[in-house]
Amino acid sequence: MDNTRIIEQALETALLAQQGAEGPPRLAQAMHDAVFPGGARIRPHLTLAVAQACGADDLELAAAAGAAIELMHCASLVHDDLPCFDNALTRRGRPSVFAAHGERLAVLSGDALIVAAFQSLATAGRHAPERLALLLQTVASAVGAPSGIIAGQAWECEPRVALAAYQRAKTGALFVAATTAGAQSAGTACAPWRALGEWLGEAYQVADDIRDVASDPATLGKPTGQDAAHGRPSSAAELGLCGAIQHFDQLIAAASAAIPSCRGSAQLRTLVRLEAKRLVPVELTRRLAPSIARIPA
Amino acid sequence: MDNTRIIEQALETALLAQQGAEGPPRLAQAMHDAVFPGGARIRPHLTLAVAQACGADDLELAAAAGAAIELMHCASLVHDDLPCFDNALTRRGRPSVFAAHGERLAVLSGDALIVAAFQSLATAGRHAPERLALLLQTVASAVGAPSGIIAGQAWECEPRVALAAYQRAKTGALFVAATTAGAQSAGTACAPWRALGEWLGEAYQVADDIRDVASDPATLGKPTGQDAAHGRPSSAAELGLCGAIQHFDQLIAAASAAIPSCRGSAQLRTLVRLEAKRLVPVELTRRLAPSIARIPA
Repeated sequence: MDNTRIIEQALETALLAQQGAEGPPRLAQAMHDAVFPGGARIRPHLTLAVAQACGADDLELAAAAGAAIELMHCASLVHDDLPCFDNALTRRGRPSVFAAHGERLAVLSGDALIVAAFQSLATAGRHAPERLALLLQTVASAVGAPSGIIAGQAWECEPRVALAAYQRAKTGALFVAATTAGAQSAGTACAPWRALGEWLGEAYQVADDIRDVASDPATLGKPTGQDAAHGRPSSAAELGLCGAIQHFDQLIAAASAAIPSCRGSAQLRTLVRLEAKRLVPVELTRRLAPSIARIPA
Repeated sequence: MDNTRIIEQALETALLAQQGAEGPPRLAQAMHDAVFPGGARIRPHLTLAVAQACGADDLELAAAAGAAIELMHCASLVHDDLPCFDNALTRRGRPSVFAAHGERLAVLSGDALIVAAFQSLATAGRHAPERLALLLQTVASAVGAPSGIIAGQAWECEPRVALAAYQRAKTGALFVAATTAGAQSAGTACAPWRALGEWLGEAYQVADDIRDVASDPATLGKPTGQDAAHGRPSSAAELGLCGAIQHFDQLIAAASAAIPSCRGSAQLRTLVRLEAKRLVPVELTRRLAPSIARIPA
């Protein structure tokens, strides 16, 4: 089974455990719409790829860890789209959960997805309790306070923003969790895998900034111009579009170089290269910043 | 150390793990205000009392499980008070988290408290992985979909409400988790303890309905008349005030009778009796329904 199928199946399993005839059907539908159809699923792909590179004997646990991280990502998108934050009506080219199901079910489905993430991880990890304990800590730290994605979003409510902490928390944390969880679910040391997650998280944040100013909403599947509209820090605003693209390429090169030498390193480098192409396509550079030479990842 | 102190300390420990110089200070403050000063902490008191009745050798785990359940309860109150739900400006006699910190931090602090609950449980349970696995499932099921408190709240978004499922989920689920988790953290069978949680949960829901029509907001510490305002089902509306009080007394009697015979059963019966007095005080009955004879719990 290829990794895409493994990931979708793990997500389906996680959501199936949250359904039942005794539950409110609209909540189940809102949770489903928050998760399917998905985006690139880059975080669980990373988790699986790192687990495989570490010679994982139990891909079920890696898949559940990746799915838990993806569910947390989906939950954060649902809450970010709420009227009190981005008030976004579209997401992944479709109505956001808030637009489709209303504000109350957007709050509740985000909450329920956070619980679902922990529950599916606990279920998959019941036969490997030592690994489970580490994975729970990894996922919880990457999501909660003081430095997970919820804390990252909360920096937007502060009068003074600690910019590095904000970006590390808002985007980086879940990428670090993705690589770390891959190693932990394989029962191997996770420290060598942190840097890959950190560089990728930073690259992803820069790509997000670039796409927010340079993409058209139809291609991106969500509103653009949000950083300027909400006064959020943006590397595209700071460095200019050309500068941001060059910075992105440098971050991708650093991510690629940070992959520890191991059996699966070539496969991981391919994953990073393809992801870089998807995030900031050459065509977008040609159209908007034809003067710059892209570094091949 | 008495149970009240054990519970407050477990909650402080859980929140301390969510703080750090690198985190956004307003989020930390909002999380703190959601949890302290608390209400009666009836759920963690139940967890501890059941664990003690079961002869727990590890009160740290029981305290962490009780604290996790209380954090989930606090998170649900913060989200229930949001403008899209109850739009409540006061809670426990003070400004609600939404009123004090704004809608965005109310959403985020609720989210972060859910994560904190799982994280603190995972930390306390690292030395007892088998018990931890059971506790994680108990807490997750009581909170998420299809039949936890989030599902209970989501029934309010349905065009047709399954009344029994709504009440079981909205209030009962966390009470069942409280008694179940007490037994599980002691490493004993939890099935005999479900009924106590179920009866108490139902009694608590009826008490809440009674207090929503019969208390004054200053004494209750939150707005009254909310059930009628939001068109929510209420046993006080269904049975009348006298009928609801008599139903409450019957439920408390059933809860008391459901306590399995064990070393700590007398202590548990005392807890139930005192809680019944606190929830629906004799003075309230004398004032509003002087004709009815209360059953002594």
